[in-house]
Amino acid sequence: MPTVQPPYFGAAYYPEDWHLEQIDRDIALMLEARMNCMRIGEFAWSSMEPTENEYRFDWLHTVVEKLGAAGIAVIMGTPTATPPAWLTERYPEVLAVSDSGKPMQHGARRHVCPTSPVYRDLCERIVDRMAREFGRDDRIVGWQIDNEVYPIGFRPTRPCCCPSCYQRFLQALEGKFGSIEALNQAWCLSLWSQEYQSFSQIPLPRADTWHHPSLLAAYSHFASDSYAEYCTHQARVLRRHVTQPIGTDMMPFSGVDYTDMHREMDMVQFNHYNDIDSLWRAGFWFDFIRPLKPAPFWNTETQANWNGSVCINGGVKPEGWCRANSWLPIVLGGEANLYWLWRQHWAGQELMHGAVVSSAGRPLPAFNEVQAIGEGLSRSGDLLRTTRPTPSGLGLFYCQYTARMLQHQPIMPGLDYEAALQERWWRPLTAGGRRPDVIGCDVDLSPYRVLAAPLLLTLEHEGLADRLHAWVRAGGTLIIGPLADIRNLEAAKYRDAPFGRLEEWTGARAVHCVPGSPGPQPVVGADGTPLAASTWFDGFDPGPCIVHAGYPSGPNAGLAAIVQAHVGAGTILWLGCMPEAAELPRVLALAVPDGTVGRTDCSAGVVAAPRSGPGGRGMAAVEVDGAPGYLTLPEPMTDLLTGRSLSGKVELEPYGVLVAQADQP
Amino acid sequence: MPTVQPPYFGAAYYPEDWHLEQIDRDIALMLEARMNCMRIGEFAWSSMEPTENEYRFDWLHTVVEKLGAAGIAVIMGTPTATPPAWLTERYPEVLAVSDSGKPMQHGARRHVCPTSPVYRDLCERIVDRMAREFGRDDRIVGWQIDNEVYPIGFRPTRPCCCPSCYQRFLQALEGKFGSIEALNQAWCLSLWSQEYQSFSQIPLPRADTWHHPSLLAAYSHFASDSYAEYCTHQARVLRRHVTQPIGTDMMPFSGVDYTDMHREMDMVQFNHYNDIDSLWRAGFWFDFIRPLKPAPFWNTETQANWNGSVCINGGVKPEGWCRANSWLPIVLGGEANLYWLWRQHWAGQELMHGAVVSSAGRPLPAFNEVQAIGEGLSRSGDLLRTTRPTPSGLGLFYCQYTARMLQHQPIMPGLDYEAALQERWWRPLTAGGRRPDVIGCDVDLSPYRVLAAPLLLTLEHEGLADRLHAWVRAGGTLIIGPLADIRNLEAAKYRDAPFGRLEEWTGARAVHCVPGSPGPQPVVGADGTPLAASTWFDGFDPGPCIVHAGYPSGPNAGLAAIVQAHVGAGTILWLGCMPEAAELPRVLALAVPDGTVGRTDCSAGVVAAPRSGPGGRGMAAVEVDGAPGYLTLPEPMTDLLTGRSLSGKVELEPYGVLVAQADQP
Amino acid sequence: MPTVQPPYFGAAYYPEDWHLEQIDRDIALMLEARMNCMRIGEFAWSSMEPTENEYRFDWLHTVVEKLGAAGIAVIMGTPTATPPAWLTERYPEVLAVSDSGKPMQHGARRHVCPTSPVYRDLCERIVDRMAREFGRDDRIVGWQIDNEVYPIGFRPTRPCCCPSCYQRFLQALEGKFGSIEALNQAWCLSLWSQEYQSFSQIPLPRADTWHHPSLLAAYSHFASDSYAEYCTHQARVLRRHVTQPIGTDMMPFSGVDYTDMHREMDMVQFNHYNDIDSLWRAGFWFDFIRPLKPAPFWNTETQANWNGSVCINGGVKPEGWCRANSWLPIVLGGEANLYWLWRQHWAGQELMHGAVVSSAGRPLPAFNEVQAIGEGLSRSGDLLRTTRPTPSGLGLFYCQYTARMLQHQPIMPGLDYEAALQERWWRPLTAGGRRPDVIGCDVDLSPYRVLAAPLLLTLEHEGLADRLHAWVRAGGTLIIGPLADIRNLEAAKYRDAPFGRLEEWTGARAVHCVPGSPGPQPVVGADGTPLAASTWFDGFDPGPCIVHAGYPSGPNAGLAAIVQAHVGAGTILWLGCMPEAAELPRVLALAVPDGTVGRTDCSAGVVAAPRSGPGGRGMAAVEVDGAPGYLTLPEPMTDLLTGRSLSGKVELEPYGVLVAQADQP
Repeated sequence: MPTVQPPYFGAAYYPEDWHLEQIDRDIALMLEARMNCMRIGEFAWSSMEPTENEYRFDWLHTVVEKLGAAGIAVIMGTPTATPPAWLTERYPEVLAVSDSGKPMQHGARRHVCPTSPVYRDLCERIVDRMAREFGRDDRIVGWQIDNEVYPIGFRPTRPCCCPSCYQRFLQALEGKFGSIEALNQAWCLSLWSQEYQSFSQIPLPRADTWHHPSLLAAYSHFASDSYAEYCTHQARVLRRHVTQPIGTDMMPFSGVDYTDMHREMDMVQFNHYNDIDSLWRAGFWFDFIRPLKPAPFWNTETQANWNGSVCINGGVKPEGWCRANSWLPIVLGGEANLYWLWRQHWAGQELMHGAVVSSAGRPLPAFNEVQAIGEGLSRSGDLLRTTRPTPSGLGLFYCQYTARMLQHQPIMPGLDYEAALQERWWRPLTAGGRRPDVIGCDVDLSPYRVLAAPLLLTLEHEGLADRLHAWVRAGGTLIIGPLADIRNLEAAKYRDAPFGRLEEWTGARAVHCVPGSPGPQPVVGADGTPLAASTWFDGFDPGPCIVHAGYPSGPNAGLAAIVQAHVGAGTILWLGCMPEAAELPRVLALAVPDGTVGRTDCSAGVVAAPRSGPGGRGMAAVEVDGAPGYLTLPEPMTDLLTGRSLSGKVELEPYGVLVAQADQP
Repeated sequence: MPTVQPPYFGAAYYPEDWHLEQIDRDIALMLEARMNCMRIGEFAWSSMEPTENEYRFDWLHTVVEKLGAAGIAVIMGTPTATPPAWLTERYPEVLAVSDSGKPMQHGARRHVCPTSPVYRDLCERIVDRMAREFGRDDRIVGWQIDNEVYPIGFRPTRPCCCPSCYQRFLQALEGKFGSIEALNQAWCLSLWSQEYQSFSQIPLPRADTWHHPSLLAAYSHFASDSYAEYCTHQARVLRRHVTQPIGTDMMPFSGVDYTDMHREMDMVQFNHYNDIDSLWRAGFWFDFIRPLKPAPFWNTETQANWNGSVCINGGVKPEGWCRANSWLPIVLGGEANLYWLWRQHWAGQELMHGAVVSSAGRPLPAFNEVQAIGEGLSRSGDLLRTTRPTPSGLGLFYCQYTARMLQHQPIMPGLDYEAALQERWWRPLTAGGRRPDVIGCDVDLSPYRVLAAPLLLTLEHEGLADRLHAWVRAGGTLIIGPLADIRNLEAAKYRDAPFGRLEEWTGARAVHCVPGSPGPQPVVGADGTPLAASTWFDGFDPGPCIVHAGYPSGPNAGLAAIVQAHVGAGTILWLGCMPEAAELPRVLALAVPDGTVGRTDCSAGVVAAPRSGPGGRGMAAVEVDGAPGYLTLPEPMTDLLTGRSLSGKVELEPYGVLVAQADQP
Repeated sequence: MPTVQPPYFGAAYYPEDWHLEQIDRDIALMLEARMNCMRIGEFAWSSMEPTENEYRFDWLHTVVEKLGAAGIAVIMGTPTATPPAWLTERYPEVLAVSDSGKPMQHGARRHVCPTSPVYRDLCERIVDRMAREFGRDDRIVGWQIDNEVYPIGFRPTRPCCCPSCYQRFLQALEGKFGSIEALNQAWCLSLWSQEYQSFSQIPLPRADTWHHPSLLAAYSHFASDSYAEYCTHQARVLRRHVTQPIGTDMMPFSGVDYTDMHREMDMVQFNHYNDIDSLWRAGFWFDFIRPLKPAPFWNTETQANWNGSVCINGGVKPEGWCRANSWLPIVLGGEANLYWLWRQHWAGQELMHGAVVSSAGRPLPAFNEVQAIGEGLSRSGDLLRTTRPTPSGLGLFYCQYTARMLQHQPIMPGLDYEAALQERWWRPLTAGGRRPDVIGCDVDLSPYRVLAAPLLLTLEHEGLADRLHAWVRAGGTLIIGPLADIRNLEAAKYRDAPFGRLEEWTGARAVHCVPGSPGPQPVVGADGTPLAASTWFDGFDPGPCIVHAGYPSGPNAGLAAIVQAHVGAGTILWLGCMPEAAELPRVLALAVPDGTVGRTDCSAGVVAAPRSGPGGRGMAAVEVDGAPGYLTLPEPMTDLLTGRSLSGKVELEPYGVLVAQADQP
């Protein structure tokens, strides 16, 4: 049983880059900053194993002990993102290779192949060793595997293209399709005489060739799988000796599938570096990683003041911004917030990145906010540990399989799946005080009353279609489209209809499917008022459906734009077009009566999450736009940060925070 | 004798990508679309020869038969743009190679070398076989060799740089110059000690090196020749067995010389994808390809609604645009308009491209316009078949040899030869109702009364200079300059004067040659009013010439800007500067009296072409700017599309079309 | 004793590219242009040694003789920037190699490795031969080694990465650090497990890898050293036989260190191609190269009218601009101005570049200004030969070692060291009539009364720190910061304080170091008025210092921004922020009383330089902004160009020039 309790508050710490004597001075500063957790070890392979098979863990035990003695917990990282020079010199076959056949160089990070059996063995050796050394140390509260694992090799990005990956890719295709004829047919390779006679003829898709989008998507899926397997392998090695929970720190990208990556992990760890104008986007990701695992997620990295490498990126923030940025993951269900990094590097590729203290050990801007956050976490820790955000019954699909298809088949210029979901769905939904789960296609749908599925190209991933249909028939409200159900798993179109199932499910029929370029088509609601939309415009013959909006002119003139079908005990609202963000409340109201999903009355910049659990009921909220805000509490509560009694409408200062506990048990 | 008569109206059709049963449904839709012609076969090598020497033409015969039975003619393509995987696997030496030595990959198009003897043999085998199978089938009205042949290998573009091409390039240089000393002198290779001792020292000019513009131009000319020879080879193979006319579908680029390419072709085939704002530019190209061969050209590809690859490009068009786009080639002398493509692909690199019907076989936007166009072509077919646009006596030089020189020696920043010709010469000329031929340097000049030659860097290509001089002396009016006659065939300057012949021809002398940057120089006409010009400013001592414009100040102060010399029975108007488009009528009037060249009174957006021939006289016109327009008929006519009697000034609706036959025989 | 006296006025001349007979016509034109000097030979290796060991110098002797007979001196160039084709064919190992291992091609320039021992030998052969032929010819007034030597190989630029360079780089590191442990520690290579076990593990830093800034800086320093050694080698070969002074024509870049390059040179030769808006920047470079060597510098290349390669770059200039551009180096202490080039090339990579006469031998724009400049130089030659610009006591540090560090560690986005020095220091300083020396860290500080050191990242280069401290204690006024003294020689931070020495020297202490992004911090002077600043903001606890400015709000609220410490007999004004250009006079006044440094009263566009020497006193000035200007003469003088007597305030026309001699001896 670790002695330090969550919420964890701290930073990444690289004692190997400093004289060991300094650690005592650092710890004194950490306590001054009110921190209780440090992430260490992640890049320190050469300090742990300076030459092959010569292990040095004394220094690391010393660090753990000194931190522990000061009441500071440790998150221990495996160092496999940065193999030592002796390793890649002796085993050059482990280097990642560009699509033009060039092996990567020592001197950066992530320059190794995710599928190399040799590298897997070498990782197993160091990880097993670390697990034996630290696996039962109760000062260590968790493990982080590797670091920011995603398929970036060379710039511009492309996954590793080494012989090992290429062979495994061909094997994966053969395993999936069985025969080359099946693959030829699935991808329509008669087109351009692309047909293969054997799997060995399939090329490693180079960036300089205009390749088939199904091939490119397949390679992206393969790369995602490779990295998920790579980390799963380390998780299994750790499990042999380790009692603490295990994760791997992820980035806000779709290159590695979160679902696949976390099958054998204990929690999601997450790094983000949003700046002033984009802070709100982090909320989307927190809503996504919260439902992924039963355990609360950890925000393992974020900036304390500014980002940078050899050059500052961003810059100083307004007063309070660090507070909002740090509380946001906690409000949305996380139990850790750690900065990158504790002390600025004194050399190297990231020496201009901000931190809690400077290279010279002097406080950097926002140090005072850091102290206050630490104190607030202490005061509210009991509630945070014993409650979780209350589910609202609302889900928004974000399918990373679709994301990888769209990467190679973007359909419309400038169409960015994540940005569209965030800006035109998630933000207007949450600005109305709703707290959606952002979910993949594999989830259990039964907890949800309303599901939204815009841009969900395929319904076939993880067998979603049948489960979704059953869920609707059982009473669910599905808001779907545009551009949903238009591709199969092979990134190809259906050939008999523009949609796989939606026409059958609803009885409506798309007469025309019209791109939203060079400009949008006009759409009018059933009440005759214009409805602003863009991106794509399907024109429906509604059949038995209710028509909520239609096209007054243009190629879809006279056809329906939004239709609704009653399906069993449930309903499907099918959008032929993408409403602009401001229209979302109106569109929601077509199918979702007030009260269907949980909702907190609050202003647009306030992120609010009611909490419940063994510890009772409460409310956590943070203002992220830097403007005055408010929320309405459902019952009288006490703010644990200030001790104030609150009820009804409560004001929040710009970047203000509230963690309140219901007065009634 | 084929049973289907032009004008041909249809689309590209890829039955090999669909279940064969579907062809009947497709044909029913084609007839509904009023089509009478399909282009097939162009990428279907792997369906014709799935493994080496195993030929399958049954399916293709079935397609031809079914189409023929429905009264739909076929244009048959050779599939050599897309060799099957077995081919490039077994004969890797046929792959095109980048300038850094990287062979291209299977999976795209045009990834083969144009000079490879092995590939020529392989092409000969499949083409000969196709010719034997289909060469006397009267349902086939023509052949298309390969597809969109131009020297693009890798992105960014550069012609094939394989050992075969390199050796042939060296041989071509040796054949041309005879001795390396002659080449050294012609290119001034003492400069920077570039001199060679042998032809083998000449490098394949890589893009990463700052190479000599004469070397780069030579490689571009060589690449153009290579592709012309590559297609000529196929034409000769086809001729052995084929009775139908032969062509190859070209693009609006100068990389492969149209003149060289068509020496052994029967007609020009042309693909263009102009969008709303650029539709007018297509007219320039039609005026260029019309005089190239005696037979009318075919517009083999254009968009029906939108372009795209894995992403939409462009988008839906205003009502009527498809009509104008489809009639434009017909008005300008073509006898075919085919869309790309009939039915949208259901997978692959171009699955988002527009078409006539969707992947699911549903009509796409503009289907109704397509139907009307088909009907109009039927109604006006007799006139179109028996008349051709009436020559106007006006020619505008567009020399693709000069274009390739300018590619490597652009002279002025942003100077684009085609754009300058189109925007500052062809458009104001045609907006005045003139219908020029756009001509290369090889043409017979005798049909022309007025020739314009702006930016014609060299007069030496195809021995133009002497023919041009003789034509002027015989009474022609030549409008020449700026930047004409300033280079020899080797892309080098003349050393004794800035011009090769113009000073001698006219008696004027350029005192200063001044670039039009950073801004233009002031020019004033003989009447004292300013004349807007740009790009370049030669200042002439006029000698015996008439001075039409001069420079009031600047480095050319006191010198002449536009001079005119009487030469024999003709005249040369020599422009030292490039008039802005709005000034062109004024400049033309200096040397071309009204009535010298044929002209139709019409508004700026109307493309009008009087017709004459065995079938009598007529007028074809189309409005391309999407605004109301008019034209004035020279005599009473009947509109074959509507049956209306017309005379005098006739209104055209936006994107409107008129095909009228003179009432008097 | 050469018969032609400076100032030298002329152009680059390439007689090898023309028929030899033409030289007489060229010389007649040169005399008409009032020229007395031609640069020849620089690229003519293949004309001197057409095949290996076959030397031809007759033609070159003829050129020298004919020029000499006309009273035109010669600057002779070694041709080693352009090895002949036979050389790189026979010795391919001399080719420079890109960082991806690709050897460069014949056909451009500078495609050879600077460290190749084979190439050094080949250079020695041709240079030794030239030295023997021409080393005692009194018609030759100087030698130019190679041409525009800087570490550009491929585009984008990166120094040569051939095996020879790589091995020498590793040897240089080993020579410097002694042990790999020392290097690991100096660069903090425990970070990311970058540590090496041996020098051989250090990679050649490729551009596609995110390398350590200390490694990148080390490779840049090595490349600089390589080119300096390469030219030094040629200088030593020349010295064996040559009596004339030796230099190498440099460019306004920091890639090769001017100090290192000129240790064994006799003078600085300099090429610049500033255009209308950037002409003033050339003055910065002239102030930099003037103090580098005792002998006056030569401006070896500049444009006469426009720049260009195969495309015009820039364009025609306003009247008088050529005059100002040509006199500027003379005014600032040079004794030569030569154009590139005499006669436009008639072919090749630079055939569109401007010149004095065209390819056809006709005068180009500005020829009349060229004539007048030549006459003016004749009239003022006695004064110019016998006086030099009078030192002002003011120095501005420009450290090219710091420049190379900043290249790989730019600190702030968009921070450009040279641009910041020029725009925010040198220009406002000189606009106040001050004439600073721009100096490196190696110079003798004793002549200076005031030194400015903004952005001087390290004080350790050339052991500056101790000398600087001593100079201050002895009475000097040092204006330093921001971003000075923050890095050691290895491009790493100090670990105990943000600064190496400044806190110790002044007693002030930086509490916060804050980037100037996303916007500036507010700064207020001691008088309460705002002081506009940007880029970086240190907040000081002033300790014993005088506080001249401070921060009213923001993360530095209450701290000092500009402090002053009295140190011995001198003073240090320490800037925590970078004043905007308009604030510089105010900031200077804080520590530099009027009269401390020499100053000429003049308008902002006037570059003025008082002169003194054996020939007496005088004033040279030129107006570079194209606007009316003035200066005030300190005593009555006579303008040698016009013969007019002048005193007091003297007007200068736009682009006007004045060279005046004091009337009193």
